[in-house]
Amino acid sequence: MLETLSAEIIAIGSELLAPDRSDTNSLWLTEKLNGIGIEVKLKTIVGDDDARLEEAIKDATRRSKVVITTGGLGPTEDDITRKVTARALGRRLLLDEKILAELRERFRSFGQVMPERNSRQAMVIDKAEVLPNPNGSAPGMFIEHEGVAIVLLPGPPREMRPMFENHVQSRLAGKAGGLKVIRRILRVAGLGESAVDEKIAPIYTQYENPQTTILFNQSEIEVHLTARGRTEVEAEALLDHLSEKLEERLGNAVFSFAGEKMEEVVGLKLTVGGYTLSIAESCTGGLIAQRVTDVPGSSKYFIEGVVAYCNDAKTRTLGVEPVLLLEHGAVSAPVAEAMAEGIRKRARTDFGLSITGIAGPGGGTDEKPVGLVYIALADDAHTEHRRFIIPGDRQLVRWRASQAALDMLRRRLI
Amino acid sequence: MLETLSAEIIAIGSELLAPDRSDTNSLWLTEKLNGIGIEVKLKTIVGDDDARLEEAIKDATRRSKVVITTGGLGPTEDDITRKVTARALGRRLLLDEKILAELRERFRSFGQVMPERNSRQAMVIDKAEVLPNPNGSAPGMFIEHEGVAIVLLPGPPREMRPMFENHVQSRLAGKAGGLKVIRRILRVAGLGESAVDEKIAPIYTQYENPQTTILFNQSEIEVHLTARGRTEVEAEALLDHLSEKLEERLGNAVFSFAGEKMEEVVGLKLTVGGYTLSIAESCTGGLIAQRVTDVPGSSKYFIEGVVAYCNDAKTRTLGVEPVLLLEHGAVSAPVAEAMAEGIRKRARTDFGLSITGIAGPGGGTDEKPVGLVYIALADDAHTEHRRFIIPGDRQLVRWRASQAALDMLRRRLI
Repeated sequence: MLETLSAEIIAIGSELLAPDRSDTNSLWLTEKLNGIGIEVKLKTIVGDDDARLEEAIKDATRRSKVVITTGGLGPTEDDITRKVTARALGRRLLLDEKILAELRERFRSFGQVMPERNSRQAMVIDKAEVLPNPNGSAPGMFIEHEGVAIVLLPGPPREMRPMFENHVQSRLAGKAGGLKVIRRILRVAGLGESAVDEKIAPIYTQYENPQTTILFNQSEIEVHLTARGRTEVEAEALLDHLSEKLEERLGNAVFSFAGEKMEEVVGLKLTVGGYTLSIAESCTGGLIAQRVTDVPGSSKYFIEGVVAYCNDAKTRTLGVEPVLLLEHGAVSAPVAEAMAEGIRKRARTDFGLSITGIAGPGGGTDEKPVGLVYIALADDAHTEHRRFIIPGDRQLVRWRASQAALDMLRRRLI
Repeated sequence: MLETLSAEIIAIGSELLAPDRSDTNSLWLTEKLNGIGIEVKLKTIVGDDDARLEEAIKDATRRSKVVITTGGLGPTEDDITRKVTARALGRRLLLDEKILAELRERFRSFGQVMPERNSRQAMVIDKAEVLPNPNGSAPGMFIEHEGVAIVLLPGPPREMRPMFENHVQSRLAGKAGGLKVIRRILRVAGLGESAVDEKIAPIYTQYENPQTTILFNQSEIEVHLTARGRTEVEAEALLDHLSEKLEERLGNAVFSFAGEKMEEVVGLKLTVGGYTLSIAESCTGGLIAQRVTDVPGSSKYFIEGVVAYCNDAKTRTLGVEPVLLLEHGAVSAPVAEAMAEGIRKRARTDFGLSITGIAGPGGGTDEKPVGLVYIALADDAHTEHRRFIIPGDRQLVRWRASQAALDMLRRRLI
């Protein structure tokens, strides 16, 4: 039996000890570490507290072969990771002129002068390798110390993640060299959590490896599969085998097989088909357009969106007849269809997608409760609509409604 | 000097070290502890791992006056909290006949016979006080050990929370001596992290209470103040005092004093002034409208939004003259101003807010790099614009651009 390498993660920052903040970096890091056969054995969250941090670093380096810290590399007094790590390892902290010059240049490129305190970020632990940070001013460090790899990463995920992927992952993978742990995520739309479990539990409960976890995340169900193998090929084959069986049971409800987001899946289908899209939104207030345009290159297929929040806007910009609004109300199937046709005509696109509904918390009635949503999709041949009653608070209703709208388009594009 | 009692929380269970699970019990506990004047100084998450858990308990009891563990009190082999805590404290583990009888009775009341392994849950650490668990089979424990309070709580929130509230909270409050801990968050826009620190460090470093932490969160800077007082009034007064000094230094850059989001602040100002708003977006793709409409009641002031992603849409829906697009390009000050005026005219609102820019990763040139953004604001008297070069990846550029746009409107509304 192959032993996996053990790691500890230390998240640093007093704000992480507040009741409304949780450390999400360690979840992402755990997934990456597991992927290269390294198991996380302990996580510590410590404030800007010299003595406790020093002890945490000493303890971790004594117990585990890999120690990763996140946070505390900023330019302020609070950012103690550099100096405390140096002290815990008994090494000096030295000013790196090259980093200092790069920092000054970074500020210059934004038309600013580097504040003097940022020079703190050019202090490097003796013999540490500096990890460049193209997304921020805090460089990271990689230190080999008595057989232990100590990695200092910045706290902001946008800086931490690329630094880990580009400069740390392959190096640690080399040290691990053993068992491979691979995960796969199937994302599901249009089915509830229990419906998904009822369909697939008879299958996945027969397998210890891969291990299956069902996760309910906003309006998506995620099925997480984790396989262990002596090689990546072996682990992948185990995943393929189980994943095929699950997909067979779930059919079209699985929209993503490698963790892609709904808007990425829809974007790819639009690109491949050479189609264009326009969107008319009421209750989601721009959220669908925002998700669609979050995808790089979306300007190839997304032409125009309208957020027609009041009735007048639905009439003047989308051409919805006032009589429809009067007779059926703004939240109705005929208005949803007229909105989809109206935006499609205005933007001259292949598809017009629309949504109208009541996101809450106010505005609901017995007949039209909070969560009632109509979604319509128009193309050159016809227009169809769907009606949903979506549970949740305002933000959740809006997010789930946007997901249902994108899923309607996805199913049309299959 | 007001000393708060310091606490550590240890969450126990291998499942808490998976990449898709985070420890939420500690957030709830932190809020409760802060409320009775106890500060959480460190959190540990450890698996079902005897040696590491023993060390974690020993370290915590040496450093802090209150140690709370959650989880690991179940009936299986994995549930190691009882035996490891006993070992760490050098105390014996004794079978409690009364608990055993209660456990048997609990199973009997559900028409079942107690499985033998559940008798493990009747093992009690010598001299520990047993905390009853009406919602599950695992009793908790309260141990006084060399001046430290050690509390073992079950993992499931529906068992842990009532046990803490009914049997632990008032006892710890007694130890804490009634000190109150209160937090306040100032949010800042339009200044960088180091600029903020340079302005306010000379002030906040003079105070140990309240304690100040600066947090960089997307495009916002948050200044977190934590005050300890003998009463809530005293803590609030300390917060008021420091907060006023900081606000004086930061001026208009502080947009929120109680953690409100930018879109809530802007929404309130629009509501109070009786103003209406329309938005024309290019690079943010609906994000600004989405943020504005995320606020309940936003239909009172938000009338219409347009996501004019291609040039044609800018002309046909916003009335931007083709000659402007030809001469200056879509990402330019004249086009931004024409978009703001165009949406304001279409929607007949008091303010028209617009944005055009290059979110990346593609589309940048030497002259117009990725991150270049023009924001314009039109009212009945005049139209003004601002130019930004925003660092970051696509999502960050979009978010920061939306924040800068809302901040421009906020400053106009002051």
